[in-house]
Amino acid sequence: MPDYPSITPIGADMDASIRACIDGKTKPPGSLGRLEEIAFQLARIQQSMTPVTDPACHLVFAADHGICEEGISPFPQAVTGQMVRNFLDGGAAISVFCRQQGVSMKVVNAGVASPLPQHPELIDAPVRAGSGVFCREAAMNHAELEQCLDTGARLVDEQAGSAAILSLGEMGIGNTTTAAALVAALLDWSPQACVGAGTGADAAMQAHKADVIRRALALHRPDPGRPLEVLRCLGGLEIAMMTGAFLRAGARGKAILVDGFIATAAWLVAARLEPALRDYSFFAHQSDERGHAAVLNHLDVHPILHLDMRLGEGTGALAALPLLRLAAAFFNEMASFEGAGVSAGP
Amino acid sequence: MPDYPSITPIGADMDASIRACIDGKTKPPGSLGRLEEIAFQLARIQQSMTPVTDPACHLVFAADHGICEEGISPFPQAVTGQMVRNFLDGGAAISVFCRQQGVSMKVVNAGVASPLPQHPELIDAPVRAGSGVFCREAAMNHAELEQCLDTGARLVDEQAGSAAILSLGEMGIGNTTTAAALVAALLDWSPQACVGAGTGADAAMQAHKADVIRRALALHRPDPGRPLEVLRCLGGLEIAMMTGAFLRAGARGKAILVDGFIATAAWLVAARLEPALRDYSFFAHQSDERGHAAVLNHLDVHPILHLDMRLGEGTGALAALPLLRLAAAFFNEMASFEGAGVSAGP
Repeated sequence: MPDYPSITPIGADMDASIRACIDGKTKPPGSLGRLEEIAFQLARIQQSMTPVTDPACHLVFAADHGICEEGISPFPQAVTGQMVRNFLDGGAAISVFCRQQGVSMKVVNAGVASPLPQHPELIDAPVRAGSGVFCREAAMNHAELEQCLDTGARLVDEQAGSAAILSLGEMGIGNTTTAAALVAALLDWSPQACVGAGTGADAAMQAHKADVIRRALALHRPDPGRPLEVLRCLGGLEIAMMTGAFLRAGARGKAILVDGFIATAAWLVAARLEPALRDYSFFAHQSDERGHAAVLNHLDVHPILHLDMRLGEGTGALAALPLLRLAAAFFNEMASFEGAGVSAGP
Repeated sequence: MPDYPSITPIGADMDASIRACIDGKTKPPGSLGRLEEIAFQLARIQQSMTPVTDPACHLVFAADHGICEEGISPFPQAVTGQMVRNFLDGGAAISVFCRQQGVSMKVVNAGVASPLPQHPELIDAPVRAGSGVFCREAAMNHAELEQCLDTGARLVDEQAGSAAILSLGEMGIGNTTTAAALVAALLDWSPQACVGAGTGADAAMQAHKADVIRRALALHRPDPGRPLEVLRCLGGLEIAMMTGAFLRAGARGKAILVDGFIATAAWLVAARLEPALRDYSFFAHQSDERGHAAVLNHLDVHPILHLDMRLGEGTGALAALPLLRLAAAFFNEMASFEGAGVSAGP
């Protein structure tokens, strides 16, 4: 089992000052709703009375999934590599969302099966050309898992060292099946409760996804108490790198924006190891992918946005980023009742 | 009854082209969820395959409410004028939200009882120094209503002529009571179902708010079929100006961002006169103010954000603006399956 960095829970020393700052702003107490909670958490993470949201960094991890052989996605596996090219060409949703908000984006080849071009925004770090067919074999071996976790951690250091906000996204045809398998194993849920439409699976294909996961769970009999072993058996490579990145970002005390179902599955593995990861995590949105609502509910998490999105890539995270920016802006720039000479009410 | 401009429903001529553009983007169909609906509506409003969200213009209408004499707010009436100064000084939430997003903001004195300074961002257009005590008298007379509606319309022409997106906000201590009265009258609902905490009214004060509205409805017996007469009897001045502004913005075919409970009450009056206003309207958020959810539900409207905000000023509208910008950006900038050489799936 590889080492992973430990994550320190955030102390409460500054909580009263942060709360007083928010409550002293020229507005009825609590009237900015969730934005007040976001501002509170951000100031708390950064242990700062001048919280910042820039620079923001987005990393997209891409890999192929052997499980595609089982016919669990309406899109061919080749689309993973095609979409990576689209990211690099600036034409994908996440490319547009990052560009529009001035967020630096890097794409990480964690294990795409098809050849990729060299590109200044591509970090080529493949562990293998797609994960194993997890209903017949382990998704990866121990060394491969360790390499994934280490690479994810290293990329946080190299790419996001100065980032105030880090978000992670993914691309990998088949990876809603992988994420559903991880969730089913970690939470001991029925596969059926965890699978959804993904990129557009119909009812029959969704039933098949659940069946594939059922076979995988019967084969590996994963122990929810050993989350990294669950991750090794079920994969995928991009998800394992995200787990490593989440752990490292938490250990560095960075504010983290968690995207949808697949990112949450990677986060869940990390949080099983280091529960304090939660202190540093904003859950950006509730995906339309079926299992996501159930996992968020299980975690007692109330995501910021409900926009019925289910694209992945980190698009939900980038859709929530403007609200973190508004939260930081009101915290830093709004006048206080006292300063503005406004009567504070009863 | 003053004249008001008529609003033309949006024709369906471009709908198929707009839909095809969205569906051809490199993502599973529908996977951007509400952002796809927003992009569709924006392109439809602007009848353009290159929809824009800039320049965006925000107008904040401020007025006092005679009904404050009845003790329906925990904040003193003087706060209306104090907050207008705070807007102009840049220290209010809406000042921060507009500045942070490069949105031009003007503050309109529709009838603030306390004296205001001259300021380049203040438009001084008071109709009277606060509306009448609407449980004892009409909030305004016919000429005053007409002046409010005309001023709101004129300000759209003068301030937002070139704006791609127009949002309206308000400030007026007491105006959740006024808005609740309007909603109760227009929808024939019990006052109790329409009143909420406002800036922080406790249960006893909320019961009192409902009682004040009950007395007003008994006095005026407003006919829901005559929405402008409802508006004249119950007020307020800033709300009436907003109604005029909504009508004019719709008549000009402008994309409109509707804020929370009070803005929605002004919108409701306008939409009763011109139902096609809806084609041009985005409902930004569901306020935490109790009556808002009920009204949105009645309208079968699904607002973009649910952030438990209840500040007014247009802050909810400005919180949703980034999502309109992301929607326009994906529509304009994302690659198509064909253009990017990505396999389109089944």
